[in-house]
Amino acid sequence: MAQSESVIPNVLAERYASGAMKAIWSPEGRILIERDYWIAVMKGQRELGLKIPAKAIKDYEKVKKSIDVKSIDARERQLLHDVKARIEEFNGLAGHEYIHLGMTSRDLTENVEQLQVLRSLEQIRVKAIAALNRLCERSVEYKDLMITGRTHNVPAQATTLGKRLAMAGQELLIGIERLHDLVERYPARGLKGAVGTQLDQQTLFDGSATAVANLEEKIVKHLGFGNVMTNVGQVYPRSLDLDTVSALEQLASSAVNMTTTVRLMAGQGLMTEGFKKGQVGSSAMPHKVNCRTSERIHGFGTILKGYATMAAGLTGGQWNEGDVSCSVVRRVMLPDAFFAIDGLLEAFLTVLGQMGAFEKAIAAENAVQLPFLASTTILMESVKAGTGRETAHLAIKENALAASKEIREGRPSEAKLTERLAADERIPLNLKQLEKLLSESSRFVGAAGKQVTQFKRATAKWTKKFPESLKVKPGSML
Amino acid sequence: MAQSESVIPNVLAERYASGAMKAIWSPEGRILIERDYWIAVMKGQRELGLKIPAKAIKDYEKVKKSIDVKSIDARERQLLHDVKARIEEFNGLAGHEYIHLGMTSRDLTENVEQLQVLRSLEQIRVKAIAALNRLCERSVEYKDLMITGRTHNVPAQATTLGKRLAMAGQELLIGIERLHDLVERYPARGLKGAVGTQLDQQTLFDGSATAVANLEEKIVKHLGFGNVMTNVGQVYPRSLDLDTVSALEQLASSAVNMTTTVRLMAGQGLMTEGFKKGQVGSSAMPHKVNCRTSERIHGFGTILKGYATMAAGLTGGQWNEGDVSCSVVRRVMLPDAFFAIDGLLEAFLTVLGQMGAFEKAIAAENAVQLPFLASTTILMESVKAGTGRETAHLAIKENALAASKEIREGRPSEAKLTERLAADERIPLNLKQLEKLLSESSRFVGAAGKQVTQFKRATAKWTKKFPESLKVKPGSML
Amino acid sequence: MAQSESVIPNVLAERYASGAMKAIWSPEGRILIERDYWIAVMKGQRELGLKIPAKAIKDYEKVKKSIDVKSIDARERQLLHDVKARIEEFNGLAGHEYIHLGMTSRDLTENVEQLQVLRSLEQIRVKAIAALNRLCERSVEYKDLMITGRTHNVPAQATTLGKRLAMAGQELLIGIERLHDLVERYPARGLKGAVGTQLDQQTLFDGSATAVANLEEKIVKHLGFGNVMTNVGQVYPRSLDLDTVSALEQLASSAVNMTTTVRLMAGQGLMTEGFKKGQVGSSAMPHKVNCRTSERIHGFGTILKGYATMAAGLTGGQWNEGDVSCSVVRRVMLPDAFFAIDGLLEAFLTVLGQMGAFEKAIAAENAVQLPFLASTTILMESVKAGTGRETAHLAIKENALAASKEIREGRPSEAKLTERLAADERIPLNLKQLEKLLSESSRFVGAAGKQVTQFKRATAKWTKKFPESLKVKPGSML
Amino acid sequence: MAQSESVIPNVLAERYASGAMKAIWSPEGRILIERDYWIAVMKGQRELGLKIPAKAIKDYEKVKKSIDVKSIDARERQLLHDVKARIEEFNGLAGHEYIHLGMTSRDLTENVEQLQVLRSLEQIRVKAIAALNRLCERSVEYKDLMITGRTHNVPAQATTLGKRLAMAGQELLIGIERLHDLVERYPARGLKGAVGTQLDQQTLFDGSATAVANLEEKIVKHLGFGNVMTNVGQVYPRSLDLDTVSALEQLASSAVNMTTTVRLMAGQGLMTEGFKKGQVGSSAMPHKVNCRTSERIHGFGTILKGYATMAAGLTGGQWNEGDVSCSVVRRVMLPDAFFAIDGLLEAFLTVLGQMGAFEKAIAAENAVQLPFLASTTILMESVKAGTGRETAHLAIKENALAASKEIREGRPSEAKLTERLAADERIPLNLKQLEKLLSESSRFVGAAGKQVTQFKRATAKWTKKFPESLKVKPGSML
Repeated sequence: MAQSESVIPNVLAERYASGAMKAIWSPEGRILIERDYWIAVMKGQRELGLKIPAKAIKDYEKVKKSIDVKSIDARERQLLHDVKARIEEFNGLAGHEYIHLGMTSRDLTENVEQLQVLRSLEQIRVKAIAALNRLCERSVEYKDLMITGRTHNVPAQATTLGKRLAMAGQELLIGIERLHDLVERYPARGLKGAVGTQLDQQTLFDGSATAVANLEEKIVKHLGFGNVMTNVGQVYPRSLDLDTVSALEQLASSAVNMTTTVRLMAGQGLMTEGFKKGQVGSSAMPHKVNCRTSERIHGFGTILKGYATMAAGLTGGQWNEGDVSCSVVRRVMLPDAFFAIDGLLEAFLTVLGQMGAFEKAIAAENAVQLPFLASTTILMESVKAGTGRETAHLAIKENALAASKEIREGRPSEAKLTERLAADERIPLNLKQLEKLLSESSRFVGAAGKQVTQFKRATAKWTKKFPESLKVKPGSML
Repeated sequence: MAQSESVIPNVLAERYASGAMKAIWSPEGRILIERDYWIAVMKGQRELGLKIPAKAIKDYEKVKKSIDVKSIDARERQLLHDVKARIEEFNGLAGHEYIHLGMTSRDLTENVEQLQVLRSLEQIRVKAIAALNRLCERSVEYKDLMITGRTHNVPAQATTLGKRLAMAGQELLIGIERLHDLVERYPARGLKGAVGTQLDQQTLFDGSATAVANLEEKIVKHLGFGNVMTNVGQVYPRSLDLDTVSALEQLASSAVNMTTTVRLMAGQGLMTEGFKKGQVGSSAMPHKVNCRTSERIHGFGTILKGYATMAAGLTGGQWNEGDVSCSVVRRVMLPDAFFAIDGLLEAFLTVLGQMGAFEKAIAAENAVQLPFLASTTILMESVKAGTGRETAHLAIKENALAASKEIREGRPSEAKLTERLAADERIPLNLKQLEKLLSESSRFVGAAGKQVTQFKRATAKWTKKFPESLKVKPGSML
Repeated sequence: MAQSESVIPNVLAERYASGAMKAIWSPEGRILIERDYWIAVMKGQRELGLKIPAKAIKDYEKVKKSIDVKSIDARERQLLHDVKARIEEFNGLAGHEYIHLGMTSRDLTENVEQLQVLRSLEQIRVKAIAALNRLCERSVEYKDLMITGRTHNVPAQATTLGKRLAMAGQELLIGIERLHDLVERYPARGLKGAVGTQLDQQTLFDGSATAVANLEEKIVKHLGFGNVMTNVGQVYPRSLDLDTVSALEQLASSAVNMTTTVRLMAGQGLMTEGFKKGQVGSSAMPHKVNCRTSERIHGFGTILKGYATMAAGLTGGQWNEGDVSCSVVRRVMLPDAFFAIDGLLEAFLTVLGQMGAFEKAIAAENAVQLPFLASTTILMESVKAGTGRETAHLAIKENALAASKEIREGRPSEAKLTERLAADERIPLNLKQLEKLLSESSRFVGAAGKQVTQFKRATAKWTKKFPESLKVKPGSML
Repeated sequence: MAQSESVIPNVLAERYASGAMKAIWSPEGRILIERDYWIAVMKGQRELGLKIPAKAIKDYEKVKKSIDVKSIDARERQLLHDVKARIEEFNGLAGHEYIHLGMTSRDLTENVEQLQVLRSLEQIRVKAIAALNRLCERSVEYKDLMITGRTHNVPAQATTLGKRLAMAGQELLIGIERLHDLVERYPARGLKGAVGTQLDQQTLFDGSATAVANLEEKIVKHLGFGNVMTNVGQVYPRSLDLDTVSALEQLASSAVNMTTTVRLMAGQGLMTEGFKKGQVGSSAMPHKVNCRTSERIHGFGTILKGYATMAAGLTGGQWNEGDVSCSVVRRVMLPDAFFAIDGLLEAFLTVLGQMGAFEKAIAAENAVQLPFLASTTILMESVKAGTGRETAHLAIKENALAASKEIREGRPSEAKLTERLAADERIPLNLKQLEKLLSESSRFVGAAGKQVTQFKRATAKWTKKFPESLKVKPGSML
């Protein structure tokens, strides 16, 4: 077979992730972040006394967006060193040699990768809050729509569709809290040198530890980190990558759970994840609507578990002051985990925007199931109306078993448990009374509505804190 | 083969975990927590108006520690329902029937398991801070002991042993922060009923949602949760278990990293993890000291990755309002993950208490390696003393290669790079000057000492917040 | 809290695994295997010329089943060495000192653990074939029972329930093939000494490598291994444990898939996993039948993924000739993975024995869905009967959309697509003709029946090879 | 930030995998396999009687290599269906419409992906055997080079470097056996239709199940599968993907273990993984040689564990006859797992080709350690020469402890255990006798040499079976 000539694309990036996320992790995006970082270091070094001309810094800034990946690659093939290639390219463009003073390669790469992580985390935080808000809107929309709640996948007690959605909301809130905590405390490695002792920067500043500390603080704040580590070796502790990737893995759970329930409800004919413009079922079966996007969300959840395993695989693996045994793993795992969670949230926003309940089908299911679910209430009312408890209990049980037999035999519309009870002399309630009782759905859904309202309040706190989340719209799906 | 008659013990509990952790997860420990919980519910229900006599509550309290697992098992075999068996046993002991009013099984089991988790997390937090503190003490002890820092497992630049330990401290600090954040926000499921709508408790309080809300708040606070969820189904979202287990997995990384470096240093003859009282090498090799405890710590790290996979396997797996597909997983994963991290911390405390550096061997290694590590400094000093940069650079390079050849050929004591340089006419420094230069270790270890001091400050914040950590002692090891 | 006094049991062993599996991994079971192994070594050594009296071997055999775990524990506490404690106990019972000659601890423990693994694998192979056979019987029973096949969880094309079960059979066949291949090639570590060079056994046989090779071959064959490794260090390569555990993980998939479909069908009211003697729904809902055992099977699948992660965590982790960094992991992972797959197969056999289809409910679903699924066939027949293709296609499409609207609105019994088509003048077939067409289920289920027959043939090959599988019965479930 | 315009490449493919592997998984490569498959189906259908002109098939063959990905993408954007787009493109090029008759999308995609997997597995098998052979050559080269064997990373007993390498060979042999078994039994899904019943192909052949069976057999054999499944739904069981990916994960272990030991030995100054043409240490430390490739191999091992987790995540996840919840996972996991193992083997071949032992440094270590390792032999010889056992034992112990104290204090060259023993009157052997004894390395390395010879025989079986493995050369490394 002939060897492939074209570039094999990153599937997660090219098919599923948003442009904004790709912009952080693309070769060009990374170089831009790197150049910003070099400039920040230069500015700090200048302020603290190194002789770097202001004009030089301006010249670097002027050319920082001139990114020519091919030229850099050509330099790398000649120099056999990727960081040197990028230094020479940037110096060449600016016409100076002031970047990377007193720095080792890891002083560059560790911090640049952490910037990519931090900015990705911030993007995901906003997008997750956008999903929370959209989920909340749908939950409020269906706040009082009674459905047949299911445990073990069979009817159990009544709830509302809004409450069912709010369950996913609860889980998403926990995931966002964890993510938020991580972003706020996420610490930078900083300028630490080859084995973490800051020797080379100290030398640059004539042995002044204070100058180096000031420099580091300036840079780290400027870049937007809330924190900086003190004691690292060549690399920052890789368990911080697990902190990151497992937060994404956890965040995914809410969407997977909710859309799994969508898939179940679609199978029952109670709901659809929605139609995409132009999408059709197969020509043979034009009526068939598949929950393909919900299924895809499930897939993203599985992918994230794999990247979390890679992240876990890096923990505890450091020898002495560090090495590159983690390098290839992080090149794959970090961008791909962010592409996956980004794709998942895009898909989740799409489902949240397009899904719809088949309210009449839901009502029809309730009509069959509610009398069963309401049996304890009917019992209480019968006792109040004068029947002996044991008599009423037996009557209900006998009729329930007879009615459920109809369902098992494929005649749910013949279950008619309400009618059976009305016709049973042992039950002192007539059909009208029973139907009235069953129509008081508030008696069966407990606090469901109030719980949705509390979910709304909890959501509002986050959208208020991150109002940009209100403007997020999903891109179109492949 | 005959069938086994004796009980197969939980290896992690019986061989490695502490008594305090076992007390939470033993059958008796769980029942005690469960009874405390029932009593808390009763008290709350009474305060809010249910007719439960104060005497009854006292009677329950009196017998709560009378735990007879065999009697409960016998009841379960008869009733075929574990929760009912435990209800009847407790009622039988107290002579009342006031527990479990308006509760479903999950109102009991979810909250009891969460209490086990929360109390275990609190234990682990204290023990992790104890380890942090012990690590810090050792780091301070070796603050200025210069060692040959290694990247890629080969000599790179000087650092100090204290700084090397402080690197593990940095990672442990991050792990503790995450754990602490989790404990503080860990939310209880609360009293939510069969599908999460609180229907049965509401019925008990004549439909009063407010009474139920008050009841729940009382109980949850009393038990020590900082938070309660609003929107759950039969079960709380299982991604909270991932939140928990992955925090333990992350916490383990620092200890595994540090003891991996101990194993490496022991292989170089620079360090020992210490001797256990009475422990001997094999009779054939009495001098052989194996890092068995450090290796075991590595094993615990691997185990935790497995439980984190199980926890991840539960995320996204909820159907509708819930089922028991997670049940057997949680029965295994939750206690065993806590036993594993507990065993790891016990072992880590042991190593931290007993390990020791072979300072003379370290000095000998430095004597060989330091001249190489110091080559840039020697270059600078030569230039200052008047030699041309290129000349000095070439001289150093030639002598370094010659010296390293000696090492590769098994004669490290013949490397003598310092002597070689002193003898080289191109280098303007004599042996005495070079030796003086090399003896100024502060020129080579950079900020290492200061970094340790900062680690000490960071540690003190935690021990001040959790002073009980200062009293933690590891148990004896198998 | 008081410290726990009772032993914490291994949950997987005590609640779910069979007695036969527990017998391999219990403390007593392990000691028995160990003693058998020591005796095998002695016999081999004697045959090859070592002076070990026949009577001594008989004396060891006489007492090998006198296993007193407490006595051994007491010895261990005194000697601080577990293997020595067991040597002295066995020697003490027999009144000789001939066991363990020329052996290191790992010559004992590695091989004994491999024997536990091999015998467990053999047990699981038989039990998996028993499950295959039971699955096949059910598949044959429902070979021609037409059901509404579903893709994306919505109706797609007709199939039969037997075929649906046979899909799980196909997967189980693949899993058994892999397991079988593993058992047949599973190689023993053998007698290799402290670093794998057989030095000590060679010394025992006056330097004769041939004698040692013969001894090893004798022992390994006697114990039932098909193979022995040549080049190992202190330990055998741990990727063999991954070979083992991932084979169990893979084997689980069929059962999880099949019972997931049972849970889905139960949710549709088409099937039950069966009733356990004495099991009841909750008193409030006596008709509710939960797929608890199917859900538990799902849980076992998740557990096995965690142990596979642990096994993977051991690969690539060997330093030089070996250490004990894997020890605690294998103590947990190996028995627990076998308990989990054993519990899963027990549960699977139970479901396979007790599950039942609700045939009338299935027929009712078919009645609604089949006309949709059969639309291409109706089109062809209409064209044969003279209608223009486009006309017929349009007629079918219009009626299908109208009918599916009824379903979405909760009136599946009003979908009546057959009646609609019969009433449509553009369709040249009357109701009787259409109903006849739809009743010829063989036109819709394709090769389903034949495929089941082929599954039966494939199953028979395995039961013939392992006839003991026909006698396997599941134990009773907790 | 500006959105990225360039394609984000697949890092594993572009940086690490070989051209041959990329050719299978590139967009063009996949389309070529797909077209070959369509042609195979057409030929089979024609032979079995469908009216497909021989010329049409020739026309398709003529254009099958005209692959224009952009044109296909344009069609997809218009048709919103990827398979249709590729059908129309190929039909358009050939000027016929004979492909894809009676097939659903999955009849195409499942089999094409399986072909990609099968061909990748075959490539990996050959490359793994190439690595085995190279490893064997190095093992034979160092067959008798005595080294200080280490357990727990400290000196334990003597072995040879060849034997140490052969240990990795043993593990690789097991991994290859498993892989080989998988390739030989790897079964195709075949032509099964939308829910697995072959309905549509049967309709095409007028209901003849026999014709369809014959067709399937022809195609599957032609494509090189050894096996075909009978009972599948829309998709083949995903545990077969776990079978595949976990075989790769297992295969990686040998290389990771061996290069971990290389990293350890490099840290001891005993070995190097080799120099790449043009590679230099940093300018500051020209003598520093880092095991970067060995570290990268470790990274690939970690990556494969992540993909194995994804594969495990797909097991047990099938609902009914199937859906696309696995789709995005497989798009990522399958190619990337093969790129990772391919990159690992490329790197392993590179290390195996370039690594070298520092024999004099090894001898120097032996000189220090061998007297310790040989203590039991010295004891025996002393007893033979007339000293009392206890006396000799005490003398050896005292001198060993004194000597090891020298080592711990950084003076290994002062350990001089041999000299100490010679000088001790209790030991009846003089220095010459002791040195002679220690020089008989065959007394200390046991069967090491013979074991290597057996490894050679085992390797030869595989290279004979797959002679193309002898021609494999690694590409150049980035």
